[in-house]
Amino acid sequence: MTEDNVVFIGNKPVMNYVLAIVTQFNNGAPEISVKARGKAISRAVDAVEVSRNRFLPETKIKEIKIGTEKIATDRGDSNVSTIEIVLTK
Amino acid sequence: MTEDNVVFIGNKPVMNYVLAIVTQFNNGAPEISVKARGKAISRAVDAVEVSRNRFLPETKIKEIKIGTEKIATDRGDSNVSTIEIVLTK
Repeated sequence: MTEDNVVFIGNKPVMNYVLAIVTQFNNGAPEISVKARGKAISRAVDAVEVSRNRFLPETKIKEIKIGTEKIATDRGDSNVSTIEIVLTK
Repeated sequence: MTEDNVVFIGNKPVMNYVLAIVTQFNNGAPEISVKARGKAISRAVDAVEVSRNRFLPETKIKEIKIGTEKIATDRGDSNVSTIEIVLTK
């Protein structure tokens, strides 16, 4: 899977990410990985659910992984939770 | 699995839910289901990750499910995303 098939979820409105997911599938991606960290994790789940329920009913959730990443901040290392949701047609 | 083996994630600090998860495992639960809706989804992932990394290193993630629930509000039905993370020893 190339980096083209990854959608990183940030702080924009959910529909921006829904559009990114739908567009990548329509461009022929067989599989898309939706990734988020910290508070954006909820938005990642929203984006996947809206994509599946409204636009891509045939899409399946292949795998959901959660984890922890260390991030360097001014006040030392900090842990942040991560999620990766792999969608497939 | 009885309702005793479910931890619902709300708006309290993450460590409250970590304590709930650790306590249920220490009380003999073979499997625990961590559930959250909406913005609490990020906190559910945090609670599971902190529990596993700091207190329950032998615990495995058996399954992660996401979904959508309809909630009745003053302004009509609204959709909310859900997550369920099943932990097992």
